[in-house]
Amino acid sequence: MRVIHICLPEGSSKDEIVNEILRLNEDPNVQGLALDLPESLYSSKVLNAVKPEKDVDGLSDVNLGRLVRDDAYDCLIPPTVCAVMELLEDLGETSYRGKTVLLVGADGAVGAALQCLLQREGAATGSCRWKAPQLRTKLQHADVVIVGSTKPDDVPGSWIKPGTIIISFSRDLLSERWIQSQRYRKWDLRCLKLQPLSPVPSDIEISRAQSPKAVDVLAKEIGLLTDEIEIYGQTKAKVRLSLLERLKDQPDGKYVLVAGITPTPLGEGKSTVTIGLVQALTAHLNINSFACLRQPSQGPTFGVKGGAAGGGYAQVIPMEEFNLHLTGDIHAITAANNLLAAAIDARILHENTQSDKALYNRLVPVVNGVREFSAIQLARLRRLGINKTDPGTLTEEEISKFARLDIDPSTITWQRVVDTNDRFLRKITVGQANTEKGFVRQAQFDIAVASEIMAILALTTSLQDMKERLGKMVVANDKKGEPVTAEDLGVTGALAVLMKDAIKPTLMQTLEGTPVFVHAGPFANIAHGNSSVLADKIALKLVGEKGFVVTEAGFGADIGMEKFFNIKCRASGLVPSVVVLVATVRALKMHGGGPNVTAGAPLKKEYTEENLQLVADGCCNLQKQIQITQLFGVPVVVALNVFKTDSPAEVDLVCEIAKQSGAFDAVPCNHWSAGGRGAVKLAQAVEKAANQKNSFKYLYNLELPIVEKIRIIAQKVYGAQDIELSPAAQSQVDRYTRQGFGNLPICMAKTHLSLSHQPERKGVPTGFILPISDVRASIGAGFIYPLVGTMSTMPGLPTRPCFYDIDLDPVTEQVKGLF
Amino acid sequence: MRVIHICLPEGSSKDEIVNEILRLNEDPNVQGLALDLPESLYSSKVLNAVKPEKDVDGLSDVNLGRLVRDDAYDCLIPPTVCAVMELLEDLGETSYRGKTVLLVGADGAVGAALQCLLQREGAATGSCRWKAPQLRTKLQHADVVIVGSTKPDDVPGSWIKPGTIIISFSRDLLSERWIQSQRYRKWDLRCLKLQPLSPVPSDIEISRAQSPKAVDVLAKEIGLLTDEIEIYGQTKAKVRLSLLERLKDQPDGKYVLVAGITPTPLGEGKSTVTIGLVQALTAHLNINSFACLRQPSQGPTFGVKGGAAGGGYAQVIPMEEFNLHLTGDIHAITAANNLLAAAIDARILHENTQSDKALYNRLVPVVNGVREFSAIQLARLRRLGINKTDPGTLTEEEISKFARLDIDPSTITWQRVVDTNDRFLRKITVGQANTEKGFVRQAQFDIAVASEIMAILALTTSLQDMKERLGKMVVANDKKGEPVTAEDLGVTGALAVLMKDAIKPTLMQTLEGTPVFVHAGPFANIAHGNSSVLADKIALKLVGEKGFVVTEAGFGADIGMEKFFNIKCRASGLVPSVVVLVATVRALKMHGGGPNVTAGAPLKKEYTEENLQLVADGCCNLQKQIQITQLFGVPVVVALNVFKTDSPAEVDLVCEIAKQSGAFDAVPCNHWSAGGRGAVKLAQAVEKAANQKNSFKYLYNLELPIVEKIRIIAQKVYGAQDIELSPAAQSQVDRYTRQGFGNLPICMAKTHLSLSHQPERKGVPTGFILPISDVRASIGAGFIYPLVGTMSTMPGLPTRPCFYDIDLDPVTEQVKGLF
Repeated sequence: MRVIHICLPEGSSKDEIVNEILRLNEDPNVQGLALDLPESLYSSKVLNAVKPEKDVDGLSDVNLGRLVRDDAYDCLIPPTVCAVMELLEDLGETSYRGKTVLLVGADGAVGAALQCLLQREGAATGSCRWKAPQLRTKLQHADVVIVGSTKPDDVPGSWIKPGTIIISFSRDLLSERWIQSQRYRKWDLRCLKLQPLSPVPSDIEISRAQSPKAVDVLAKEIGLLTDEIEIYGQTKAKVRLSLLERLKDQPDGKYVLVAGITPTPLGEGKSTVTIGLVQALTAHLNINSFACLRQPSQGPTFGVKGGAAGGGYAQVIPMEEFNLHLTGDIHAITAANNLLAAAIDARILHENTQSDKALYNRLVPVVNGVREFSAIQLARLRRLGINKTDPGTLTEEEISKFARLDIDPSTITWQRVVDTNDRFLRKITVGQANTEKGFVRQAQFDIAVASEIMAILALTTSLQDMKERLGKMVVANDKKGEPVTAEDLGVTGALAVLMKDAIKPTLMQTLEGTPVFVHAGPFANIAHGNSSVLADKIALKLVGEKGFVVTEAGFGADIGMEKFFNIKCRASGLVPSVVVLVATVRALKMHGGGPNVTAGAPLKKEYTEENLQLVADGCCNLQKQIQITQLFGVPVVVALNVFKTDSPAEVDLVCEIAKQSGAFDAVPCNHWSAGGRGAVKLAQAVEKAANQKNSFKYLYNLELPIVEKIRIIAQKVYGAQDIELSPAAQSQVDRYTRQGFGNLPICMAKTHLSLSHQPERKGVPTGFILPISDVRASIGAGFIYPLVGTMSTMPGLPTRPCFYDIDLDPVTEQVKGLF
Repeated sequence: MRVIHICLPEGSSKDEIVNEILRLNEDPNVQGLALDLPESLYSSKVLNAVKPEKDVDGLSDVNLGRLVRDDAYDCLIPPTVCAVMELLEDLGETSYRGKTVLLVGADGAVGAALQCLLQREGAATGSCRWKAPQLRTKLQHADVVIVGSTKPDDVPGSWIKPGTIIISFSRDLLSERWIQSQRYRKWDLRCLKLQPLSPVPSDIEISRAQSPKAVDVLAKEIGLLTDEIEIYGQTKAKVRLSLLERLKDQPDGKYVLVAGITPTPLGEGKSTVTIGLVQALTAHLNINSFACLRQPSQGPTFGVKGGAAGGGYAQVIPMEEFNLHLTGDIHAITAANNLLAAAIDARILHENTQSDKALYNRLVPVVNGVREFSAIQLARLRRLGINKTDPGTLTEEEISKFARLDIDPSTITWQRVVDTNDRFLRKITVGQANTEKGFVRQAQFDIAVASEIMAILALTTSLQDMKERLGKMVVANDKKGEPVTAEDLGVTGALAVLMKDAIKPTLMQTLEGTPVFVHAGPFANIAHGNSSVLADKIALKLVGEKGFVVTEAGFGADIGMEKFFNIKCRASGLVPSVVVLVATVRALKMHGGGPNVTAGAPLKKEYTEENLQLVADGCCNLQKQIQITQLFGVPVVVALNVFKTDSPAEVDLVCEIAKQSGAFDAVPCNHWSAGGRGAVKLAQAVEKAANQKNSFKYLYNLELPIVEKIRIIAQKVYGAQDIELSPAAQSQVDRYTRQGFGNLPICMAKTHLSLSHQPERKGVPTGFILPISDVRASIGAGFIYPLVGTMSTMPGLPTRPCFYDIDLDPVTEQVKGLF
């Protein structure tokens, strides 16, 4: 038997070692492999590379995934060794000082590590392979024999001196211990202490005053393996999707959605509640929890709205990283979106200026004397029903069918995007240079987060699924009215390549050092406005069965939550445990008949002084939103986001009415001024509610006709009397139904400022007919989106944008003026 | 004396510790600080935070920058301890077994570490502070006394038992040792082995077959400290500019420029020569070297040209990372560029639709009852000569002057950008939506790398300098003809914030594991086409005095090299040591009268069969480019990039002629097929040439009139008889001169396919008049760019773009089809 010890020079990469292992796996002259590597290289990737039949150490089948810090020995050891040492302890053998310990059949890394630890305990150690000639002699001199995977009774009893302690460990036992160690456990998480100041400083001052933990430390604390993260600087890391495979047998944690009542234009603090809630759960109640948030567009950060990392003492830090490039996902979307847009116009130009034959010769050129279809072209041929692979054999008709997409420019729905509030790009004419030969057309730019690719990122469940969705995106119709897709344009693979890193969620932390995923941020106006399915799925595994994942739905519950349930949960298959419905006294007063609330203008006195009548009247909206939640069969906890001008009587009144209206509980929260401590009661209520009976159901069946699905949402959720489709909308419905897209869920594009389509109608409007002006579709993302009135897809810059206050200190490198 | 041991819980971040140190520094009750931290926290940031007068350990003034792995003890120790142990060894005391060692006045981290090491050597150790009552007793029992910073003769002789060994170490000595250890030394770099295959596989296959070292390993090998890098995934890291401060006293290495003869449209391999040369220097000649390369635009990667990571066995790996998002710098430029563009149009709209007073009230609003100018508005007031700080005190005239930029839309030179080949954006009309109230205008998008911000990134020398350049960018003229800048629009700070990470160069590696910086890639058509000054500066420090930094100039030497010397070297103050001039037999044959060479079409037989006459005739171009190099007083080595169809006689002929023409040396290279081994002779020639006399000088004086500078370049470099300015060009020259921009260097925008302005004129054209059609300026970047004919700033997509072959394997996550 030839056993190779793999012992590469220090500095060798894991890939090199894996390659070497794979080579030796296939070498018939090598009967076994034993690894002898620096600690840092004992990764699951390396260990799993060893073929089981060549595995001398029993490494691969115990699925060593990570090194465990052993405090007693102050070093990193493979978990197998850890398990063996625990086993020895369990067997009551804790002192080996002065004893001679022989390891039999454990002469690889595990054996070496065991020997090293036993020596530190004061033992003299030796090792021996099974059937080695000196085994008998060595056994005679041993006080303790530790036997590897083979059973100890393989050794003749007469070889062993009387009184020898024999300890055996079986792979099965270790394997089981390892799997158990992977299971749910409370994180040993070092929380960051908060010392809230009063008055509360600006968001960026609070963020900067707190020092985040290094992200690799956080990753380790929550059970991520070294191989599963990609670090981006000190405070951000992408998490690999391979984790879903590793933890696939782990039960999911509880899934909590934060939604809101119909808000004022100022917003009512859903993001701060989301963050405050996880800070309370993890930093104050010691329960594993994760917040999953949307990545904000950079447009509003420099425009009007400012950042979106929460606020006050409930924030994601560093907030400037959160609000700026993050790990580049939105930039990747912009690149992918605009490559497709450029491909559409360029293709139309080339088709318009070339004969079928010339087009075909260019699309399928002779390269080094060979003419071949590329993979994506072969796929198109199959879709066209042309079962040929030799470019020379296509008939003229087939050539024409293949080469000419024949896009009808007036039907192009694919727009270019920028992540900037650039109002002058809302409507433009493109193609006016001479080189484009007069093929001008009207077009527009949307804000990057409005791209369908963003919606796909938010809904996808794997790389394969993302690639399929990207290919299915419909960008226009051809002149016969058939859909033209990204796949037809040959660009699916390139889009997937541009998005290959964006698909991994980004790990950050709250002000109290608890974990947060930031991933995807589809525009709530025309898409579903929820963060990603993948981040939720990964977080649900990481928190474990008793943990909580808290995520947020954009806008009021009538829009954000409805889409969360009917679109996002349908895509993911996940079942929410609790809905947290965020309300503010301010918004309720508005619904009760208070004066207009406008961004930028000072609040009227109704909002800064106690007014119980306005509050009581406005609770109709809260009640309605609770009822909407109940349509889906999920328990609801009302979180009253308390402002310093709210009176105790107002707060009590809201909570009272909320409970009467069917909320499982209703609690005031002060996370903005107090951090997680201010949301402890909410956290406790959520924990209780999560144990309630849950009878989650979707609102409508996908098989219903498009119009019927729209009507159900309008009537049951918004309280409309009926819906009314414009002729354009009806013709689009007919077209999508004919094209086979009728069974997709519905993503309503409606104002969030009223339950109805009219922003000025507060409270609970009734008796209205919801007008559907147009119906569009995001086929790759997988939904139909009816437009209720016009929805802007490109914000503008005001006279004095936020950027006037934003600056960078060139010495400290600190960002100033973000909020 | 109250000495505080800082001993925070494990997992504390460096920032927390630094904050605690800074707090204790200021605490009058604390007389000294001693650190007692986990190894991983001994960073320069932490240690330098200790105030010198409170420094018990002598840590801060020894400028502990990093932990050193001590192989003997197999642990990480601070370098002070390392220096002490070395000192002890130098003093001949190598064995302490059985001895009692007392440390006096060294009771902090250094003392503790020393004790620990001595204990491992078998010594019994103790420590004592100066003037402690038990000092005398302890001294009596010691065999060896190690004395900290205070002089040993502070101890009365009678206290010490006869025969005691006394060892003292002074801070000065340690400090000097530390500084020495920071100096140049040969890297202990693990090179990656290459086993070139024949025929040479595709670039991505070669790239993927090699496993890169983890980037943190590479960073450590080349002397970067942990605090100086920001890791982006496994293979990329950004390097902080703080390194320039740390190594400011380190002498620079040799600075090598790779330029080329006038190329064919296929390119002659400057990038592969650059990479091959550093592979040869470092992996084969064991000389520290760095390649500094441009980051390629994603547009061509998906369009026609493919990637730019080198090729064959001279590549940067992983090539897909190099060619895709990298670390997001180009995306940051796009975001910054487009924010400024949006700000211009939005400002014009708001000025056109508001009175001076309304405009002023919005620009300087009352917020929470207070009305204040922001910092950037105060700066604008000062520029306008209004020395007021109270918004209430401005006169009507001052309000109007301040609030109204009065941009003349017809003079806007600032264009939007995308990093996509989108030909339909070459000329567009913007502002056609109703919300923009009819203020339409014609505009264009450029490819992102054509943004002036990219040119600034390439030329800047610090964060402060970048911010100043961003503010100075002229985007238009006002109606009086005065320049309007980014600073006037209030956006400088926001642009700097968007660019704060992009300013840090990205570290990658070659196929042989040698270091590469990828940083900035200004469009060679209208900018200077060279990678960044900062990357070169950092690399020159890292390679040390005897090392080499190799960088590349775009296009032929007549353009790329001329700009490198006159623009880039002027901005950096760096002096090049050698120019490597890349030639190919193919291009020389073209210059000798061979048939046209066209991308995509097969090469004619003149290029694949021996033809000495064509080669000999074409060498006129090589000779001219050598002469151009000599204008600048720098030695030139000709690198003949050998193709497999080149005959030995052809190769010899070129080298012969090159040497006759004044090249220091001329050598054939085979790095494409053989990696660094194929460029060893080139590396040796470059090393020799670097020791030649160097009389570097710029070609022209900045104080000359713009037209004169253009004429000098046209005549001396291109060989033109004279220049001829169009009326538009002349009027721009007059305008820039009047505006005070006349003393900027010149950045010619001329075809690279001929020394003249006519691409079809090969060889060495003479007697032509160079027509200057227009003159533009990048004031922030700091150059005037005359247009010689029209230069495209937006490439297009062909009928069959590269993306047809690009795909992502969803299981292995591998990218296919990039080249």
